[in-house]
Amino acid sequence: MRISRRTALLTGLAPLVRSAAQTGNTASIEKWGLFSVSFRSPAGVHPFVDVSFSVEYRHLNRTVEAAGFYDGDDTWRARFSPDAEGEWTWTTRSNRADLNGKTGRFVCVAPSGRNHGPVVVRNTWHFGYADGTPYYPFGTTCYSWNHQSEALEEQTLATLRTAGFNKMRMCVFPKWYAWTQTEPRWHPFEKEYTHFNPAFFQHLEKRVQDLQDLGMEADLILFHPYDHWGYAKLPPEVDDRYLRYVTARLGAYRNVWWSIANEWDLVKTKTLADFDRYFRVVRENDPYQRLRSIHHSKVMYDHTKPWVTHVSLQDDDFSKTQGYLDAFLKPVIYDEMKYEGDIPRRWGNISAQEMVRRFWLATTAGAYGGHGETYLNKEEVLWWSKGGALHGESAPRIAFLRRLVEEGPAGGLNSLPNPYYPVAARTGEYYLWYFDYHQPMEYEFPLAENVKFQAELIDPWNMTRTPVAGTFSGKAKLALPGKPYLAVRFRKV
Amino acid sequence: MRISRRTALLTGLAPLVRSAAQTGNTASIEKWGLFSVSFRSPAGVHPFVDVSFSVEYRHLNRTVEAAGFYDGDDTWRARFSPDAEGEWTWTTRSNRADLNGKTGRFVCVAPSGRNHGPVVVRNTWHFGYADGTPYYPFGTTCYSWNHQSEALEEQTLATLRTAGFNKMRMCVFPKWYAWTQTEPRWHPFEKEYTHFNPAFFQHLEKRVQDLQDLGMEADLILFHPYDHWGYAKLPPEVDDRYLRYVTARLGAYRNVWWSIANEWDLVKTKTLADFDRYFRVVRENDPYQRLRSIHHSKVMYDHTKPWVTHVSLQDDDFSKTQGYLDAFLKPVIYDEMKYEGDIPRRWGNISAQEMVRRFWLATTAGAYGGHGETYLNKEEVLWWSKGGALHGESAPRIAFLRRLVEEGPAGGLNSLPNPYYPVAARTGEYYLWYFDYHQPMEYEFPLAENVKFQAELIDPWNMTRTPVAGTFSGKAKLALPGKPYLAVRFRKV
Repeated sequence: MRISRRTALLTGLAPLVRSAAQTGNTASIEKWGLFSVSFRSPAGVHPFVDVSFSVEYRHLNRTVEAAGFYDGDDTWRARFSPDAEGEWTWTTRSNRADLNGKTGRFVCVAPSGRNHGPVVVRNTWHFGYADGTPYYPFGTTCYSWNHQSEALEEQTLATLRTAGFNKMRMCVFPKWYAWTQTEPRWHPFEKEYTHFNPAFFQHLEKRVQDLQDLGMEADLILFHPYDHWGYAKLPPEVDDRYLRYVTARLGAYRNVWWSIANEWDLVKTKTLADFDRYFRVVRENDPYQRLRSIHHSKVMYDHTKPWVTHVSLQDDDFSKTQGYLDAFLKPVIYDEMKYEGDIPRRWGNISAQEMVRRFWLATTAGAYGGHGETYLNKEEVLWWSKGGALHGESAPRIAFLRRLVEEGPAGGLNSLPNPYYPVAARTGEYYLWYFDYHQPMEYEFPLAENVKFQAELIDPWNMTRTPVAGTFSGKAKLALPGKPYLAVRFRKV
Repeated sequence: MRISRRTALLTGLAPLVRSAAQTGNTASIEKWGLFSVSFRSPAGVHPFVDVSFSVEYRHLNRTVEAAGFYDGDDTWRARFSPDAEGEWTWTTRSNRADLNGKTGRFVCVAPSGRNHGPVVVRNTWHFGYADGTPYYPFGTTCYSWNHQSEALEEQTLATLRTAGFNKMRMCVFPKWYAWTQTEPRWHPFEKEYTHFNPAFFQHLEKRVQDLQDLGMEADLILFHPYDHWGYAKLPPEVDDRYLRYVTARLGAYRNVWWSIANEWDLVKTKTLADFDRYFRVVRENDPYQRLRSIHHSKVMYDHTKPWVTHVSLQDDDFSKTQGYLDAFLKPVIYDEMKYEGDIPRRWGNISAQEMVRRFWLATTAGAYGGHGETYLNKEEVLWWSKGGALHGESAPRIAFLRRLVEEGPAGGLNSLPNPYYPVAARTGEYYLWYFDYHQPMEYEFPLAENVKFQAELIDPWNMTRTPVAGTFSGKAKLALPGKPYLAVRFRKV
């Protein structure tokens, strides 16, 4: 038996989990960090099917059981992400004697650096990190960036380093689609569906960790219809084993979110009951209860179902937002509002201006937007699918909006009732008005009484903020430039 | 008794009806022109209430009865617009002996110049002049332009001469509203509601004729909620007498359309049954069955009712257009799509770009749009209410679109089924695609097979048309500039 700082010791990858450090014989793991323990035992014929292996973790009077997994090379591995500081002990359970009854302990210490814990739902319609730090999703989509060449994947990460996004929608299974017709370096199965390919998942984990290192959430899409190899029509028992394997391997990464499917209603080989079951399997096997959502094409899933933590939408009619927020009482993310680009598909050729506009409309409606980019190029490397470089103009403007929101109150912004112009606010603290195609010469802003606010005129496209002289309170009339697509922000003095 | 070329002989106005000419003792009237005959008889105490007066017109085996009206100054007048060439005779009917049983004749001759007759519904969803000339409404709104000073009204007409609109929405009753708080030169009643003010209506007629001379339809709004003087809460019998008076005076003007109300649902002093009755009264008293519509704010009138000739909408969600066209089987005009301007009302401050965009969206949806403009100025002369000058940028672009449509097939343009991008077409003849915020680098246009088309790339904002080399047929892929808000037109060679 050995306790490793990194599962990567077996695969030759550089350390990914910087929060785990060994102190003498007792590992020291950051709160929300990743504890990993591994054992060697002969694989046998069907290590993924025949062998049960889990670990019970104990802290004070609480126990958590988390599944382990076979990682190839006669190696069995278990991971855990502790959510409380102090001493934890653990005991293995297995139907195989040499994997059963192993024990150990580690000390969970305070988080450090950018480790704010996992993102959870907060204030009904918003999110926050577990340590209380606000989190506002400003995500992008590169469905298959993690199935590309090493060079391209590294380029994607380099782009993300400065792009300003804090969430990535990405598929676990490889994707086959227009402009996405290359074989991945690894496949999730080896020969038979009873045999997972550890290399595939080790690579996936590396990329999830890379995103974590960039401060990004990994919104992992577990099923999708863009299939070429049969992953959209696996037998139910394979689907379920896959979900258990993925949750066992990846659940302990604090930046993991589960997106049960992309365009679930286009996966014609599955029924609604299958997707309900997938939610159940994930919920039962994820000790951390990471965020769970599902994304549709035409037929919206019933997001009132209790296993859905937030509403992931493909839509660009923001007038319905308040209805969704009221009906679901969950955060709403317009994960797919069409993509900035120029491809011959109408979902992939909206202008940068329109993409930026949609982010503002989603935000001021009290929800969140999602970015994607689809500019044609000879290499057929389109961001939305393969990652690479960004060629468009919306990303910096989205990052600009993100900064405006992050400067706002921790609780998130909600639309005011019956807004005259789109506005997200926390009454008495912060207001962000967006005028869209309106170009009034003035507006009387309905601010809270008896609170002093400073105002800024904001140009979302040119990314400028111009302070307005004076302070404002109650019904405050401001002269405006009479130009469209401007915004005004008020902050409590 | 005398037959006059002009009712205006009594009021000192210059001749308005150029189609009427006297030949010896027999008047010669153009088809769809305006025949007028007047008689003198002492008014009595209640000439508008006590005296019945109408004229029966006979042509071959057909008779048409049209109400006459009291025009002040002991003068009784009757008007008629014949729709068939040849000899017509007429006989007056009245409960007053000296107005009863008068007879005469006139000859209806071929129309000339710009006289194409009244506009009627054609091809279910479109319009045309009675002589077969196509008519595509590209209208504007100056609700109260006809209640302004002589100088301002003349300025409005001068603006209209080159603005490119062919329909005007205007109120019969004076309007009182923000930026519209001036007393009109004339009021429709004198002292009591039993006494119409002939000068008011003579002026209205002059303006209707002025529009006709400019080739414009006058979409006369009979009721509206922007009241100050009590015209929105007249007793029912006064409402009905007013409608009979207006139809008697104005029905013979071939460019008159009846808009029963503007924002009918905001006229809180009236019920839906009242508006149904107004339609009935107009229908019963208009021998020409001029176009009839009604315009709403929030509550749409049931446009399936048989007395509605076309659907006049306040809306800017063009995705519903095909539903309306299918449900109502009538032409749809988005008469109010909000206004280009900068006032502090969100319905009156959309950008010129957005106004132009909406015209393209309405047109490519198989419907028609309507213009209005609300730019603030010191004089408080806003086009949408008082007319005057245009200050915006959309009007020439709307006129540009009008020319494109007028160069199309006579039958009007319908949306193609399930269009991928907005497109209005007459399959096999003419296609007008609009790409809105999409910016594809190419598109495969689904043209008719076995027909040769020429293509033009159109920039709706810069008003350019760039011919594309070659001819096209069937599925035709064209390279596009990858910029938003462009259009492509195909015309049969």
